[in-house]
Amino acid sequence: MTEAYQDHIGLLTDFGLKGQHYVASMKGVILQLNPNATIVDISHNVSSYSILEAAYLMNSTYKYFPECTVFVIVVDPGVGSSREIIALKTIKNYYFVGPNNGLFPHIISKDKISDCVKVENDNYFNKPVSRTFHGRDIMGPVGAHITLGVPLTNFGNSFDINNLVSLPIDLRINEEKKKILCTVQYIDNFGNVTTNVRLIGNSVEGYDLELPLDCMLKFKINNRQISAKFVTHFSGVQRNKYLFLRGSSNFLELSKNQANAAKDLDLKVGDTIEINLA
Amino acid sequence: MTEAYQDHIGLLTDFGLKGQHYVASMKGVILQLNPNATIVDISHNVSSYSILEAAYLMNSTYKYFPECTVFVIVVDPGVGSSREIIALKTIKNYYFVGPNNGLFPHIISKDKISDCVKVENDNYFNKPVSRTFHGRDIMGPVGAHITLGVPLTNFGNSFDINNLVSLPIDLRINEEKKKILCTVQYIDNFGNVTTNVRLIGNSVEGYDLELPLDCMLKFKINNRQISAKFVTHFSGVQRNKYLFLRGSSNFLELSKNQANAAKDLDLKVGDTIEINLA
Amino acid sequence: MTEAYQDHIGLLTDFGLKGQHYVASMKGVILQLNPNATIVDISHNVSSYSILEAAYLMNSTYKYFPECTVFVIVVDPGVGSSREIIALKTIKNYYFVGPNNGLFPHIISKDKISDCVKVENDNYFNKPVSRTFHGRDIMGPVGAHITLGVPLTNFGNSFDINNLVSLPIDLRINEEKKKILCTVQYIDNFGNVTTNVRLIGNSVEGYDLELPLDCMLKFKINNRQISAKFVTHFSGVQRNKYLFLRGSSNFLELSKNQANAAKDLDLKVGDTIEINLA
Repeated sequence: MTEAYQDHIGLLTDFGLKGQHYVASMKGVILQLNPNATIVDISHNVSSYSILEAAYLMNSTYKYFPECTVFVIVVDPGVGSSREIIALKTIKNYYFVGPNNGLFPHIISKDKISDCVKVENDNYFNKPVSRTFHGRDIMGPVGAHITLGVPLTNFGNSFDINNLVSLPIDLRINEEKKKILCTVQYIDNFGNVTTNVRLIGNSVEGYDLELPLDCMLKFKINNRQISAKFVTHFSGVQRNKYLFLRGSSNFLELSKNQANAAKDLDLKVGDTIEINLA
Repeated sequence: MTEAYQDHIGLLTDFGLKGQHYVASMKGVILQLNPNATIVDISHNVSSYSILEAAYLMNSTYKYFPECTVFVIVVDPGVGSSREIIALKTIKNYYFVGPNNGLFPHIISKDKISDCVKVENDNYFNKPVSRTFHGRDIMGPVGAHITLGVPLTNFGNSFDINNLVSLPIDLRINEEKKKILCTVQYIDNFGNVTTNVRLIGNSVEGYDLELPLDCMLKFKINNRQISAKFVTHFSGVQRNKYLFLRGSSNFLELSKNQANAAKDLDLKVGDTIEINLA
Repeated sequence: MTEAYQDHIGLLTDFGLKGQHYVASMKGVILQLNPNATIVDISHNVSSYSILEAAYLMNSTYKYFPECTVFVIVVDPGVGSSREIIALKTIKNYYFVGPNNGLFPHIISKDKISDCVKVENDNYFNKPVSRTFHGRDIMGPVGAHITLGVPLTNFGNSFDINNLVSLPIDLRINEEKKKILCTVQYIDNFGNVTTNVRLIGNSVEGYDLELPLDCMLKFKINNRQISAKFVTHFSGVQRNKYLFLRGSSNFLELSKNQANAAKDLDLKVGDTIEINLA
């Protein structure tokens, strides 16, 4: 198997501000292996251990990168335990390296994966391999080797994609009653609340549910009910008013124009929202 | 029109920590267009929607970059509305791309602008263009195309620089009474308070007001009055004492040696300070 | 003296989120001098003025970078005063540039330094040189010139490494009583508490003190006593239980599995911990 390759590598971790030096160590190891690597920070501000947030961020960004970009994801509370490390390739030639802890199914659907291996060949690791920092010692160097053209099969045996751990996120859509029970996937700095309801145009993906532009819907959140208008952009309502829209990653997003909806509604990632479309 | 060009591109946004992935999407789009781009983060920690902060940061940093660097500024509360997107070139060959919302006049004075266009040609956009993320879909790709040598005129028609929106910042200087009423432009992590009083050497720019080194001045802040010594560097006063100096971007800066002046004085960006030079 | 060189340069500062633009100015100056420089952020989230944190971060990351990488360290409360600026080279061909304020002895031991100069030749500075931002005007450009192959001797006269300022960190090890009194060097985003007790395998470096795997030790912290188990990785104990391990930089680290040990124990950098190995 020969593979096309480039030098772009994206890093996604939950290391946070006080872990920026961990990211730096990973970059050092990568640059030792491939001095021409172009390393891009996807985010290092994933909430500690939040597989849900990390998967959402990866899913919503990878497709904007050049083909053959390699993404290394280190949100890894089980580091050093028996959880597998996976490297996979998509049919569109993106690469992902990370722990098998529930990340992958939310990033990429099975039918879009072309190759998947369990990373085990320590010829490609940084030695000595610590038991607490596989981002630096295993996943980073494996990512760097992929940018150098090393085929996935060199890292270990094929891994059955049906064994990729899955972490279901609650989403219940009742077409008849026109009710949606969904989950908060992400909250950004502006307080925009991204749900896991995917929209295509103005319709709920896979359902016969259309949202007419400018309609007002009721959102039930933490025993509180608010109304929000369906608009195309934030300033489609007055300042400080609730709105919802199809966000830039095509999920239904609840916001306030120039104010912080998440804060005002006391919402956090993983919370449930009930939407009444009747 | 032919243009010199290089591969450096700087990004300035108010996306914050939880919006680092938005920056990553912009970088992905830029690298798809110009895989050799060198992308530099100017800041992504501008306070949400603060045009004042963003303009100050851009103004105080751009001149340290190589000629032909392109700066993309995404502090854009009006995204998706009718506000224009502008691309301009300075006579010193720097490029700026951003929304026409008050940013530009604080970054660069009119007489230093050589070309200015309204960005409208969607051949240079990332498709489909979202209504909420023009940084990724319009401004980022336009910036990338500039690094590739695309002339500004390709992006749209010439834009009259007299129509660049201006947001005045309060600054009243009374030479006779030796009083200055100025505005806080920025507060950094150390709590250094940068005003909008520009100094040349020890004098107030454009006025016959000199500040003798080591003089003590009175600052009236939030109904409180403090005295601070004019020094050249922070350790020119004892630890925890107030001082002021000509900051590294040549504005008058109020500080405390190894302590946080902004916190202790409860100051924030946009606040007014009265300085008595008598 | 000829020197090997590459284009990698790492930046470590205490500029923080609201000082990201200061870092950007440094990068601009560096890219003006060496447009091919690959600049890596080591960390900019060192606590303000914390020489101890900065030295720990530098020490624990530099060795993962390619030979000839240049590191510029701007944690510099004495900027503009008479403290020297130092540039040094290690026998393994790493370069460090920073103020002589106690940083260096914790980064690199004397016997590993091959060259050391006092930076004074302003031909290599960014002009005009401010009195408050030597990172941008002196240390950054000197670092860039090193990546271009300028020998250290060009920057100034040789500097006696015995005059590198030292800031002792408390560490008292009593082999007989099997007691260790150590200091917190760093606390990361997960709340992992890194002490200054260096381990080799399971032994305390330089002492006849072995820690058997799975042993329970008593830690005395702020008049409180806890027990923690010695494991190899975080999930070696149940969630929310205390543990300690040899961290990824080979120091003894106190943690809680998927919880924040530092917060729960109210620990901060510089605090003292007493460990009872009896």
